[in-house]
Formats: sequence, C-alpha cells, structure tokens
Amino acid sequence: MKDLKNNLFKNIDLSLDELISLRRDFHKYAESGWTEFRTASKIADYLKDVGLEVKIGEEVIDINSMMGVPSKERLEEYKKRALSQGAKEEYLNLMKNGATGVVGILDTKKEGETIAFRFDIDSLEGIESDDINHRPTNEGFASINEGNMHACGHDGHAAIGLVLAKAMNNIKEQLKGKILFVFQPAEEGTRGAYSMVNKGILDNVNYLFTGHIGFKSGKLGELVVNTGGFLSTTKLDVYYKGRATHAGATPEKGKNALLAAATAALNLHTLCQHGDGTARINVGVLKAGTGRNVVPDRAEMKIETRGETTEINEYITQRAIKILESAANMYDVTCEVTLAGKAESGYSDKELSLLVKEASNEVSDITNIVEYTSLSGSEDATYMMNKVQQNKGKAVYLMFGTERAADHHNNGFDFNEEVLKVAVKVYATTVLKLYEKEGN
Amino acid sequence: MKDLKNNLFKNIDLSLDELISLRRDFHKYAESGWTEFRTASKIADYLKDVGLEVKIGEEVIDINSMMGVPSKERLEEYKKRALSQGAKEEYLNLMKNGATGVVGILDTKKEGETIAFRFDIDSLEGIESDDINHRPTNEGFASINEGNMHACGHDGHAAIGLVLAKAMNNIKEQLKGKILFVFQPAEEGTRGAYSMVNKGILDNVNYLFTGHIGFKSGKLGELVVNTGGFLSTTKLDVYYKGRATHAGATPEKGKNALLAAATAALNLHTLCQHGDGTARINVGVLKAGTGRNVVPDRAEMKIETRGETTEINEYITQRAIKILESAANMYDVTCEVTLAGKAESGYSDKELSLLVKEASNEVSDITNIVEYTSLSGSEDATYMMNKVQQNKGKAVYLMFGTERAADHHNNGFDFNEEVLKVAVKVYATTVLKLYEKEGN
Amino acid sequence: MKDLKNNLFKNIDLSLDELISLRRDFHKYAESGWTEFRTASKIADYLKDVGLEVKIGEEVIDINSMMGVPSKERLEEYKKRALSQGAKEEYLNLMKNGATGVVGILDTKKEGETIAFRFDIDSLEGIESDDINHRPTNEGFASINEGNMHACGHDGHAAIGLVLAKAMNNIKEQLKGKILFVFQPAEEGTRGAYSMVNKGILDNVNYLFTGHIGFKSGKLGELVVNTGGFLSTTKLDVYYKGRATHAGATPEKGKNALLAAATAALNLHTLCQHGDGTARINVGVLKAGTGRNVVPDRAEMKIETRGETTEINEYITQRAIKILESAANMYDVTCEVTLAGKAESGYSDKELSLLVKEASNEVSDITNIVEYTSLSGSEDATYMMNKVQQNKGKAVYLMFGTERAADHHNNGFDFNEEVLKVAVKVYATTVLKLYEKEGN
Amino acid sequence: MKDLKNNLFKNIDLSLDELISLRRDFHKYAESGWTEFRTASKIADYLKDVGLEVKIGEEVIDINSMMGVPSKERLEEYKKRALSQGAKEEYLNLMKNGATGVVGILDTKKEGETIAFRFDIDSLEGIESDDINHRPTNEGFASINEGNMHACGHDGHAAIGLVLAKAMNNIKEQLKGKILFVFQPAEEGTRGAYSMVNKGILDNVNYLFTGHIGFKSGKLGELVVNTGGFLSTTKLDVYYKGRATHAGATPEKGKNALLAAATAALNLHTLCQHGDGTARINVGVLKAGTGRNVVPDRAEMKIETRGETTEINEYITQRAIKILESAANMYDVTCEVTLAGKAESGYSDKELSLLVKEASNEVSDITNIVEYTSLSGSEDATYMMNKVQQNKGKAVYLMFGTERAADHHNNGFDFNEEVLKVAVKVYATTVLKLYEKEGN
Repeated sequence: MKDLKNNLFKNIDLSLDELISLRRDFHKYAESGWTEFRTASKIADYLKDVGLEVKIGEEVIDINSMMGVPSKERLEEYKKRALSQGAKEEYLNLMKNGATGVVGILDTKKEGETIAFRFDIDSLEGIESDDINHRPTNEGFASINEGNMHACGHDGHAAIGLVLAKAMNNIKEQLKGKILFVFQPAEEGTRGAYSMVNKGILDNVNYLFTGHIGFKSGKLGELVVNTGGFLSTTKLDVYYKGRATHAGATPEKGKNALLAAATAALNLHTLCQHGDGTARINVGVLKAGTGRNVVPDRAEMKIETRGETTEINEYITQRAIKILESAANMYDVTCEVTLAGKAESGYSDKELSLLVKEASNEVSDITNIVEYTSLSGSEDATYMMNKVQQNKGKAVYLMFGTERAADHHNNGFDFNEEVLKVAVKVYATTVLKLYEKEGN
Repeated sequence: MKDLKNNLFKNIDLSLDELISLRRDFHKYAESGWTEFRTASKIADYLKDVGLEVKIGEEVIDINSMMGVPSKERLEEYKKRALSQGAKEEYLNLMKNGATGVVGILDTKKEGETIAFRFDIDSLEGIESDDINHRPTNEGFASINEGNMHACGHDGHAAIGLVLAKAMNNIKEQLKGKILFVFQPAEEGTRGAYSMVNKGILDNVNYLFTGHIGFKSGKLGELVVNTGGFLSTTKLDVYYKGRATHAGATPEKGKNALLAAATAALNLHTLCQHGDGTARINVGVLKAGTGRNVVPDRAEMKIETRGETTEINEYITQRAIKILESAANMYDVTCEVTLAGKAESGYSDKELSLLVKEASNEVSDITNIVEYTSLSGSEDATYMMNKVQQNKGKAVYLMFGTERAADHHNNGFDFNEEVLKVAVKVYATTVLKLYEKEGN
Repeated sequence: MKDLKNNLFKNIDLSLDELISLRRDFHKYAESGWTEFRTASKIADYLKDVGLEVKIGEEVIDINSMMGVPSKERLEEYKKRALSQGAKEEYLNLMKNGATGVVGILDTKKEGETIAFRFDIDSLEGIESDDINHRPTNEGFASINEGNMHACGHDGHAAIGLVLAKAMNNIKEQLKGKILFVFQPAEEGTRGAYSMVNKGILDNVNYLFTGHIGFKSGKLGELVVNTGGFLSTTKLDVYYKGRATHAGATPEKGKNALLAAATAALNLHTLCQHGDGTARINVGVLKAGTGRNVVPDRAEMKIETRGETTEINEYITQRAIKILESAANMYDVTCEVTLAGKAESGYSDKELSLLVKEASNEVSDITNIVEYTSLSGSEDATYMMNKVQQNKGKAVYLMFGTERAADHHNNGFDFNEEVLKVAVKVYATTVLKLYEKEGN
Repeated sequence: MKDLKNNLFKNIDLSLDELISLRRDFHKYAESGWTEFRTASKIADYLKDVGLEVKIGEEVIDINSMMGVPSKERLEEYKKRALSQGAKEEYLNLMKNGATGVVGILDTKKEGETIAFRFDIDSLEGIESDDINHRPTNEGFASINEGNMHACGHDGHAAIGLVLAKAMNNIKEQLKGKILFVFQPAEEGTRGAYSMVNKGILDNVNYLFTGHIGFKSGKLGELVVNTGGFLSTTKLDVYYKGRATHAGATPEKGKNALLAAATAALNLHTLCQHGDGTARINVGVLKAGTGRNVVPDRAEMKIETRGETTEINEYITQRAIKILESAANMYDVTCEVTLAGKAESGYSDKELSLLVKEASNEVSDITNIVEYTSLSGSEDATYMMNKVQQNKGKAVYLMFGTERAADHHNNGFDFNEEVLKVAVKVYATTVLKLYEKEGN
C-alpha cells in the first residue's frame, strides 16, 4: 500500500504541467453556466482517452430541472462559438438546451462501494482584467470569450477532475466498485446540481467528495476537511407587466409596474427576522419604465433569499412570492416569478472528514489541517450531498488552500497552480484510505 | 300677493325669538349622526302641533341603506339619554337601529306640484369650548351631551325647518300641491341622505330646496343662490387582523397588520392623478399594534376618497379597495372594508337658482346675492338633488351668509342667529314666487 | 395690400416643393436635442443665402442655461456625424457644448415693432418604423441617423421657418421694424427655450408667433388661433450612490441605493393633491443595482412634475426634491439631482389670436378656425411667450391641422405636407394684418 | 459550617408563610415602573426593621438616567394612591420624579468583599384576570390597582429579597465585608437598572447575584446556574408633528405625519440583516391622525431594537434614528425621539455559576441543575452585570424553576410559591460557599 501511494504521489507530481495546461485551456475558453459546450466536449474527450465510460448532456442532466437557463438565442450563439473553438459536433448534439454536464465512470467490475467526485466547470460572467500584472493576461491565457471569465477557480476544478480520473484509472487494478467523476455545469447562481441529482446521477453513491480551491486567508498546504454552514438559497427572476399611458394626460389609464416593484422591494426587505436562525433577502437589481413621461408598464427584479436552514429559506421564499404577487395585484399588474437558482443548507459528515484528515496526514504537501470552517455562503453541491446522505451515504466538502491574486469573483482573480496537484493527491489518497478502513 | 308676502315677512320677524329658542334647545342637547333621538322626537312633536302629517324613523329611512351606524351599545345608551332628556317613547319605538329621520307633510289637498325642503339635524362629535367668551357657554346653552357638539349649524337648520313649516301652514289656504319638510339625520360623514332617498321620500318631488348657514367670508344678508362643485365622496373604515407574537423571540410567527396598513396608506396616496378632474384620497386615521415588543396583530384606518365627478370618485374607491386588499394579503392579514359614508357630485339647477334670486330681491334682509359658488367639499344632499333631477324635477342648494365666531367644525363655532329668520324668509317667499311663475 | 397678399400667397403655393424638400432633408438627417449640428448648419446657410443676418450657437444660446445636455462624448460623436453629413466646420466651431440654435434677422432699417417667429428643430430619440407603408421609408427619406427620428413634426417647423423667412424677405420693402426667425434646439424634454430667453433673444420682441403642426382630430385646413392650458413642467434626473457589499455575508456594510430609490418613488407619487389645480408627477424610469447577490450601490431615476400653474409645478418640484434627498439620507446614500428640462405654464393673448383669426379668414386654405384649445401638455415655448408678455408684448401659439399617419411620438408618425404652405401663409398674412391694424 | 447551613435552611423553611404573605401584599398593590411608591416604602420599612442601613429614592437613583418615566400627572396620581395604600410620607418625599429604588446595606464592619443581590420590583401594565380559577382572584389578592398587574413574578422577587436580607442579617456574625440588597424599579421596558448603575450603586461590588423565577418548561426544583444570551435592546418613543388641513380643499397645506410614520415603519423593518448575528426591530405601536377628512398632523410610534451584541443593537438603533429623522424630513414633519429603555447584551461568569452549582448541590429542594440557558430576550440587569465585570468582579444570572399557571406577561400568570424559599436558600448558601472558597 505504501508503495502504491508513493507511486501515485510521484505520478501526480509529474502531472503538474498537464494540470496547468488543462486549467489554462479552460481559462482561455471560459464558458458561463449552461454554455460550457466546449469545456464539456474537451472533458468528455479526455475521459474517453483515459478509457472511462462517458455520459454527456441529456444523459446526465434532467432537462426539466435546469434553472436560470439563458435564452435559446444565446445558447445557439455560444454553441456556434464552441464549435469554432474545437468542440465536437457529436457531443454538441447531445447537449440540447444547454445540458452541458459530463460524467466519467470508472467501473472496476469488482464488487464494492460507489465513490463520486464532483467538479463544477462553469465560468462567471464578467470581463477579465487586462492589467499586464494579471498573470493570465501577461502569459496569454486570459479569456478570449468576452464577458466570460473563470474568476472562481472552476477551471482548476475541471483540471483536477480530469487528472484525478487518469490517476485512478492508472491504478484501476487496485480498486474495486465504481468511481464516478461528475462534471457539473452552472454552479454560479446555484443552478446546475439539482438537474444532475434529479437525473439520478447520485442515486447509488456511497461516498461523495467535492470542494473548492482557495478560501479566505488560505495558503498553499492548508486543507479544510469539514466545511459546513452552507446557506440554503433561492434565486428568483421577477417580471411585472402593466400598461403604459401618457403620464400627464391620462395617468389613470396606466397600470404602474414601477410602483408595484418599488412596493415589493421595500416589503421584501422586511422579511428577515426569524427566530430559528439567519435569514437573508436581497433585491439585487430592479429595472422599471421606458420613458420619463410614460407611466411605467414593465419592471424586472433579480432577487435572492437565503436561510441558515432549508426550512428558513423556504419560509422566506414563500413569503417573498406572496409579497411579489400582492404588490403586483395592487396596481393590477401581472407577475411572473421564475426560479433562477436554488441550493439547500447542508453539512459534511464528520467521520468522513476525519478519514480525509487521516489520509491527508500522509500527503507531505499538506502542512496545516483545519477541522471545520463555516462557508456562510451558498453552494449547490448541497443538493448532491443531501441526496447521498438521504441514502445513508456520506459526503464531505473540502477546501484547498492557495494564495490568491484577488478575491473570488474579482476580475483579477488568479491562484497558485500548485494547489491543483495537492487536491488530486488528497482526493486520490482518500480513496485508498477508504479501502484500508473498509478492509478492516 | 304683496300683502301676503308682507304679512308673511312680518310673522317671520316675530318668530325670531322662537327660532333662537329652538336652535338653542337643539344645541344644548346635541346628538350626533344616527343618535338624534331627542332631536327627532322634538321635531315630530312640533310638526304635529303645527298640524302636519308626520312620519318618523323607519317610515322615512331605509334601514339597509344606513351607513356608518354606531354600535348597538352606543345606540342603546344614547336612546336612554334621549328619554331622560325629554324624547317620547312612542317615537323612540319607531326609531329602531338609529333611524332618526322625520318628514312633515303639508298637504293642501289641492292639485299642484310637490315641493320639498331638506334640513340636516345632526351634531358633530367633539367637545364644545368651555371658554367663557364662547356664547353658548356664557349663556348656558352649550352642549350638555359630552362628546357631541353642534359645530356646523345643523341646530339652526332644524329650527329654520320647523318655523318654516309653521309659517307655510299659516298660509295653507294660499298654497296648492304638497310641501314636504324633510329632517335628515347623519349628514356629517355623508351617511344619512342615501337612506331617505332609498325609502322613496324624494320620489315625487318637483322642486327641492336645501342649503347651509354660514360660508367662507359670508356676512349676514349675503345669499348664494347656486351652489355647485360638490365633490363625490366615499368614506371607508378598514380593519386588518393579523397574528401577534413576541417580536424578539419568534417574529416569523407574526402576521404584521401594522406593516400591511403602512404599505396600504402609502400606496393609497399615489392614486390621485386623474385626467378627467380632481381626485382626492386621505388616510385620516391609522391605529395599529398593542405593545412595543409584540408583532402588531391589528390595524384600523379611516379613509375617504373624493372626485370631481361621481365616476372619478368611484374609480379612486375601486382602486383603493384593491390596494387595501392586496396590502393585507402581502402579510397574510385579513381585511374588512366597511362603507361609512358616501355622497355624489351634483349641481344646482340654474333656472331654479335664478328664481330664488328673483324672490330674494324682495327680501329686504338680503343685501348681496352671489350667483354661484363652488363648495369644493362634499354633501350628501346631492343624493336627494340627483334623485329629483333624474325625475325631471329641479333642485337648488343655497348658502345663507352669517358672521361666525370660528370656522365650521371648530369647537368655538357659533353664528349670528338673525340668519335663521333670513333663511325662513328666503325659503318661504321662493314658494310664492314659484306659484307666480307657474301661474303665468 | 390685396395685390401684395395675392402675390405672397401665389409665391408660397409655388414654394410647396421646396418646403417638402427641406422637410424631407431634415427628416432624413434627424438630430435630437442639443445635437442639431447639421440641421442648424443647413438653416444658417439657407438664411444667409436669403440675405438675412445670421447668429448661431453661443451667439444665441446661454450656455449656462442649457438643460439636459448629452455627454461630451456623445456631442463629439454627433458633431463628427454632422460634419460627414454636410455641416460646415465654421458653424460647428460656434456650436460649442451643443449650442445648436440659430436666429435669422430681417432688419428693414425702418422704424417699427419687432416681430418674432419661433420654430423648434430637434428630432426625438427612437427608431423610425421600417414598415414599407410608412411613407418616409417607402420614399427613401426615413432617418438614416439610427436612434433619432422626427416623430413630432419639427422637421416641418424648420422648413416653414425657412420658407417664411424667404417670403418675408421678398416683400422686405413693404415691411418695417425687424422680424426675427428663431430656430430653437431641444424642445423635446423642454430643454432649449430657456437658454435662448436667457441670452436675451426675446428681450425686445413686441409680437411672438409660434405653434405646432398636427393636433388631435385635426384635419388640413383647420387652425387653432389660441392655444392655452400649457402645463408647467420640470424634468429631473436623479443619481443615488451608496455602497456595495455581499448581500449574504455582510449586508450591514452596504448602503442600499435601490431601497432608497424605491422609497423615493413611492413617496413622490403621493404629492399630487393640490387645491389650486392639476398636479402631476411621474417616476418614468428607475434602474438600480448591479447583481443579484450584491447590495445595490447605485440607482437612477428619470422624473417629471407638472402643474396647472407654474406655482403648482414649483411646489411639487420642491416637495419632490425634499423627498429625493430625504430618501437618500435614510440609507446614507448620496443624492444628485440634475435639472433636465423645464417649462412654464402660459397662455396666448386673446387680442392677438383674434387678429390671427381675422388674417386667416383671408387664407382660402383655412376652412375651419377653432377659437381655443387647451394643450394639457407642456411646451417650452412658454418661456418665450412669458418673456414677451412680461415686457408688455403679445404672444400667440397656433395649431395647424393636418391628417397624421400616427400619433405624435409614434415611430410611424407622418403628416400631410400641404400643411407646410398653409402655416407659411397664416404666419405671413398675419404680419400684414398687424400692419393694417397698427396703421389705423 | 454544616450546622450553620442546616439552621439557615430550617429558618428559611419557616419563613415560607412570610414569603407568601409579602408576595401577595405586593401583588395586591401592584405598581408599574417608576410608580412603585408603596412597594418601595414597604421594602424600606422592612429592611429598617431587620436592622439594615437603608437608602431610597434619589439616594440610589440617578435622576438624569431614568428612562421611560410616566408624566408628572401620572406620577402625582400614583403617589397619592400609594399614600392611601400605606406608603410613608417621609419616603415619598425622597422618591421625587418616580425614583422608586431602595438599597439595604448589611455592613459586617469586617474586612471583606462586597456582595450584591438585585431584585426587580415593578409590575406590568395590564388588567389582571378576573377568572375565578385564577388564584389571586379566587383568594383575594388580585391587584386592586386597575391597569397594573404582577404578571412577571417581580412580586416574588421583592419577597425573596426581603426574607434573604433578614436571613443573612440573622447570621451576620458569621459574615464579613458588605452585602447589598438592591431593589430596582422599572425593569419592564428595561428602564431602571441604568439609573442605579449611574448612581454608583454597583461601583464597589465584587460579586453580583440576580435572577428570575419561572422559565420555559421549568418545574419547582430546577435551577439554571448560568443564563446568557441576553439581547441588547433599545426602546424608542417617537413623536411626529406635522400640520393639519382639510384633506379635500387644501391638501397641499398639510404636513402629513401619518405618511411620514408609515414610510418610517416600512423602512425600519428592512434593517435586520447583519453579518455578525441576530438583529431585531419592531414598530409595535403606530397611532396617527385625528379625523377622516383631515391631513394627519401627528403620529406616534413605540419601537424597539435588539441585537445579539450591544454593538449590533447600537448599529440598528443608529440606523433606525436616521430613518426616523429622514422620513419626518420627507414630509417636513418634526421628529422627537425619546429613549424609553435600554439594556445591554451580557453573560454570566462561568466560574461563579459553577460555584452556585456546587452550593446548590447541598440544597435538597434543588432536584435538577441546568448548566446553561440562553434567554433570547432582554434584561436590564445586564447593566449591573457588565458594570461589576468591568471592575473585575463577577456576576451571575440564575433562573428558578416553578410551575406557572400561564406564560409570563399573560394576565392569568401565577406560580408555585414554594419557589420563593428555594430561591432564598440558593442565594443564602451561595454566600457561605463563597466564603468557603475564599477561605481556602
């Protein structure tokens, strides 16, 4: 076993160049949620080359559970772009409606547990810094897809997933059961995980590992083995439609969508007192009206709710919808509320996190292990974690320390690429540790 | 005819003491809307003594059309008070539910038109000034019914009506057709006229005369022969019922009636832009909540809408009700809206007003005639005027000038009592003028 | 005199082709407020060719009184466009900051009154209909300046002004005093007239004529000789600046510009109850926030107030500014209010309108004269009218009937071009009638 | 020491009748915050009889730090009532302005620490149940002071304090240092403690013990030795003053205090999102306006804020005041904000609570000790606890279990009076345990 690990670690060390090369390729061709056509195509190709069974698109995504999907026009446009940037037509045909997920299956054909690793692969929307001191710009791998940028490290996640798959496949003979490599689209806005869960991808999983690179005050070599404090969240898009009229001559003929939206915004923000824990609401965007002298006939809002528990979030969401509908009704305005994203609260299993700790103690790159950190944010990995836990499986969310050039979501974001191999090692050795434990 | 008038005027001059005495009696025993039990009893007695046929209570009021009626408890309490202050039990038995109207009928048994005079008889709610310079206080006829005060001159209206009835009865032989003396309760809050109209009291009336003593910048001897600009109005009482809870411990269990009412109040006040004319809304009173640390479970509002036309007012009212219901719905609060009063827009017939002018030219007390004034307020006499006009009759609303000690509705209100005889003369001579005109 | 008029009318009839040609040229190169660089350049050239003294740009515009001026970038961009579309550089140099007004002076060198004609020349913003049934599209003179369209007939006004100037210059020997032809930029949004008044252009004018082509239910041959009922108006642009923060993690660090704006919008709309007459307010546009999960740090609103009188409008504006500032202060947000336009209430002089009527009776094209119409809208010509009237001069606002293809401000707007010669005739013959009257 | 304790416990057992009698006396003559004239007088008398030095009124209350004091009229009225119910004039003279605190000092004249016990003595406002099953009603000790009721057990607290003082005085020879018995007025609304702290009463205290009888799901024999989770709170009374006017005729002349208050209420409720912990706000009462047809010229609100820490509460309070002032400013209404109560967050010292636990283990009445409970409410004892802790002293807040007939603050509240002797025992034996510890 010791030899096995040493070999494994040595091979991963040797993969660093490949990890960097993969990450930078994904970075350069950044694709945001539900438009990861090229990214998914590259992933599928790589996994096939490694020798895994590959499922893609509607095979791994429940079309009816996709949230916050861009318009058909944008999907078509981005599909064309992907094609021109090297995506394969055969894959694109499977990724209808923006179903850009991929799953690689390493089946040992031996009896055993099913282990899943989950990696999110989407970029953010935003324009990457053109500052010459920004390494991607300086070294020529900044996003060439204007308006899309990997400012949250999912380019690195995808690279980790691929190299991990190859590394595990290399020691396939020593493994048993199945290992799934789940590449999830549209984590930003918490839109994608739900559709993979509903397709049944996590149904028979006994152990789920996922995580993120970079955390507040993290440094290379630091590892959080138990992340909790996920806030449940719901993202809502709201459209109000009223009736325009000349504001000076016949104001009484108007149906004022702007006043309806203003009333909704104010009242929504009164909802956050809850005896059971933290609750949040934010009307992040409100746009209403067409011209100064016209009674505004349209308004749109982008809203999110959060809760320390899924129940609190659900309570806030239901109250919010009631307020949205009532405010519209006040002005005889129609109201359309669309679900644009959703994540649950969740927690990492303590036992499993301790096993990761034990495994990581043998990884020399790891210099500091943090036993617990609260995210105080939202992640749709919770859908997958909760699904596994409901089926008596175990799930854990890790955080891999790395220096960062700027905060996550900032357009100058970059990270120490050494973290990629650290993550691959932690994941890989954890699988072996799992067998050790089970073996006994 | 000239002799007839001279005699008439002389007799009216001699009635001034009686007018003052009647007015001061009504003033002292002030009774507000739907509780004019003693006032109506005294009126009925007087009219019977004069020799008129008298109808009272449910004989002249449609019970189902009464608006803004006090609680049964208050009605009972005030009925008892009236009994102790000289009301007759036989009348009280007819004034069920606060139906405190009276109609005196002078039937000449000769063919002819039906003329109606309308007088409102209710006091306001409010505490009369105890300033020694306030004449009613100084001379001992201030209201002894605490919380009720004749601060709008309806005590004088009632006195005018009675002495006019006697004066007309005295010259009965010279008259023809019928003359109705309509004593209406609950004009304040525009609550009473509707119920008399719906009882059919105005159904066969050809000419309707009504009016008010005292107007802005008016002096004794001034007469407005054509009052218009009545704003249509609706009075609404609103009750919200939510759910109380400890505001610190379990705020999410509350249903906040105060926030619902605050939202309603703000949005109601956005309604007053209308291309067809003046519109008004006022949330005059808002009371909500029980204690500082309790989520408020109740709120009540007193609201009124107005419109330059009945249509505008109806538009504002309907929009207001939608807002009231929607705001309640926002916080899952129940909403009860009660109609507490209503008046229509209306106008005086120009021809009839010119006839009054002609008649008044012969009244030496009249020194200045104003051809038109806009009330820019609301009066439920409009229900009666509109009813008569719909039946091809004519109606006119007069204003009799008098010095005032303070503005109408002020607790120091008082007026020059000479105006009482002026009003009786104008009304009386107008009847004769009408015959002259018809005669030709 | 009769011969003079007949000749005049004949010449104007002959000018119809030129009127149409000029109007279509302005239509094709539509330029919106403060960017009428090419339009003004063409006007100046024409007037010089006719033989008038011409002032342009800062010579006729008070730079500090310009309202609602586009950004420097847009001004530069549109200046370049104008240059490429035939504007003369010498004029452009005088039209700094978008000062795109022109005045042509016909000085008879004889003693006499000063008469002014005022024409507004700006297009609207909006995209012209590309419907093949829309005549400008069909006949190839639709706007080639995307985003600008003459949908209010000011292209026609400019053409009328030029041909009128030529016609009057042709009979210069028969004239006395001075005639000013004032071409005003930026009437839309009521932004331009104020700056010409403040430059003193109207200071010595004894008679001012202005007007508009097309009115509700108007037909060719109809003429309104007295337009009143101008609503005073103020246009405000509002910018709120707060502080952004992550809405889930540190909401208390944000300064919420969206909630400040929503509160302002609601409360602004409660202002329109005024005892002296009609009042209006409209928050026509509200845009706030940048992203769903960020506390909104910016908001902007486009607002207008109106009043039946200048005083009412001023009252509403002052109340509105107080509400805007207080709402910002509530959330510790900064507030910048910019005046984007303004017009006063006003009226046409009755005597002068009767003179126009008398003159027009001799114009055979005029088949129906309307003595008075209320505009119930706003026009910044009122600044000029009020200035002339303050100096004891007289002013009149006419409306020239014409069939319309669609409502004013609609992107399918077009009109019967015959109205152009009718307007020139009415204006021209009115000058002669004025001399006749004065002559007596 | 064992004998001492046994004797002590025996004597306390024998005091049960006195405890009940005292409690019922205070219950019958319930007096709410700052009007505990009779209660304080009785307490002072008792302490003097026991032999303690007694300070009262302004001797123990800083007049300028009193919050939420009733009007002078009410204070006078209640002082008279107290006099008629047995209060002594000499004490009343010292209790100016409602300064109804008392401190009894047991000075052993021996060197040693200063220990303080604090008891709150005020009743609530509210009408006691007249249900015959309500024991105070049934047994004739229900409040005869209508509108005041001991529904929070402070009658019991006062009784505990007196009998504890007597019990400690009885074993004075065995004690050292000083023991203060602090009887605090006006705990309800968190109004009183601050004024005793500012008078310096707690300045030299080394150990502070206080607590409450009855807690959620508590039973006789249960004891919480460490209560924490006190929410910091601020109570604000708000008065808005605008200008009244006739709502139909001259609405623009009004300054609408109701709309200002409605806007404030809505916006205040948006404040409760805070990244550092729980925050609360409640507009518990809003009353505005005088009549339906009058623009409301006055509004009042009763508000409270809370925070998990004093800093959070202070943040909410400062934001709230800004909103209150800005909303008033919106409608040109004046705003007066009065501090009506305030409490800090706080915690019990763990060591001291463990000492109480150890001591209580020897009290046979105690059958269950709870090591920690979060109050999740507010208590102004925190001012005293924080003061002692700032001076390096220690403080602890206990809760004594008892069955309750209804929830605290309910008008049917009553408790198992056995708890009174349990509390006396716990406090008394804790003092002895303290000496044991120190002694070693």
